[in-house]
Amino acid sequence: MFDVIAFDADDTLWHNESIFTMTQEKFREMLSSHGPEVVDQTLSSTQIKNLKLFGYGIKGFILSMIETSIELTDGEINGNEIQQILDFGREMLAAPIELLPDVQEVIDELSKQYRLLLITKGDLIDQEAKIARSGLVDYFTAVEIVSDKNPQTYKKILLRHKIDDSRFMMVGNSMRSDIVPVVQIGGHAVHIPYDTTWDHEQNHTYIDPANYTQIKSIGLLPKLIEEK
Amino acid sequence: MFDVIAFDADDTLWHNESIFTMTQEKFREMLSSHGPEVVDQTLSSTQIKNLKLFGYGIKGFILSMIETSIELTDGEINGNEIQQILDFGREMLAAPIELLPDVQEVIDELSKQYRLLLITKGDLIDQEAKIARSGLVDYFTAVEIVSDKNPQTYKKILLRHKIDDSRFMMVGNSMRSDIVPVVQIGGHAVHIPYDTTWDHEQNHTYIDPANYTQIKSIGLLPKLIEEK
Repeated sequence: MFDVIAFDADDTLWHNESIFTMTQEKFREMLSSHGPEVVDQTLSSTQIKNLKLFGYGIKGFILSMIETSIELTDGEINGNEIQQILDFGREMLAAPIELLPDVQEVIDELSKQYRLLLITKGDLIDQEAKIARSGLVDYFTAVEIVSDKNPQTYKKILLRHKIDDSRFMMVGNSMRSDIVPVVQIGGHAVHIPYDTTWDHEQNHTYIDPANYTQIKSIGLLPKLIEEK
Repeated sequence: MFDVIAFDADDTLWHNESIFTMTQEKFREMLSSHGPEVVDQTLSSTQIKNLKLFGYGIKGFILSMIETSIELTDGEINGNEIQQILDFGREMLAAPIELLPDVQEVIDELSKQYRLLLITKGDLIDQEAKIARSGLVDYFTAVEIVSDKNPQTYKKILLRHKIDDSRFMMVGNSMRSDIVPVVQIGGHAVHIPYDTTWDHEQNHTYIDPANYTQIKSIGLLPKLIEEK
């Protein structure tokens, strides 16, 4: 029934949001005199404001943390403290890739029957580095790194790889990026929620749950595909 | 003789390095007590050190300026000054696209006879924004944004678009990124030097000048192609 199974990467194949969460905890501690809620709210609104300019990714996140720290301290934060934020960023960029349970086995199994694509959004160099370190790259016939995942993005990818939308399945953790736009262009989508999802990704157009499938973990995917 | 003419973007179709140069001037002024040469040298070595981690692009440049300012002031720089650096970055990201002379006409003319590709390296979201603002996107059958331009990158692109290397021409300002790797895989390359080139891009493998063509400006390109 499917020619191509495409996967999101961050928080679908490996942990990612957890690295942001951990960093944000350190950032909150660093600015603890301002109260954790104020820090979180200011950072969140700075990030959203900067999204168009900076895109998704670690470099944009570091810049937004720096901007937030300056705003909260009325410019009184000093270079040594900002160096700490730069160091947080460096640690994030060097963080080891931790695959989610069953990912290796499922990808290996499916690659024997289907063309697999990796479709991920974010910063080009961050994503390339993570994909290289994941050890999974050879399972995929193509890797597409995009700045945003909307119906047009998916249409372009399907056109480029000559994939019939009705024979395309997208698997991912984000309703906004992996499920809604794929359903909108007539593809199949499988939602595998991750423990935590950035608020921004929760904000999406409503679609009828009858139009996509939700499973608890990637280990259940091969059986689901078989039964489709 | 050619099926595809590919173009680099920054400093080949529009001004780019000049925006970095102007920003670096402001940065030098901001830290003028340390002497212009020390500022330039420290920034340059910070940039080279960060290249693997940050890649090419404005966000990485802003982060390297911030790191340099902290290093030069022994951490004593304050948030308000770092905010100035963030503002430099914002200005860079919002800078209007200024096409180089004759670009519009040459691209328009060549697009009637050849498939044109745009192959640019750098930050995904920066490059997309610039390409959109350039007004040239419809002339290109495809746009490839890559993190680095080496022989493997070009081979992949040629394979993806089913282009014969001997019928491929690449036009660009950087010997390191646009000329040397293309000659190495058996393609044709046309070098159009830009006024200023970042030192890092000057550092490249020697190739015999008989293997590529150098012209002074893009206005001379159609005639060159005709005569090949």
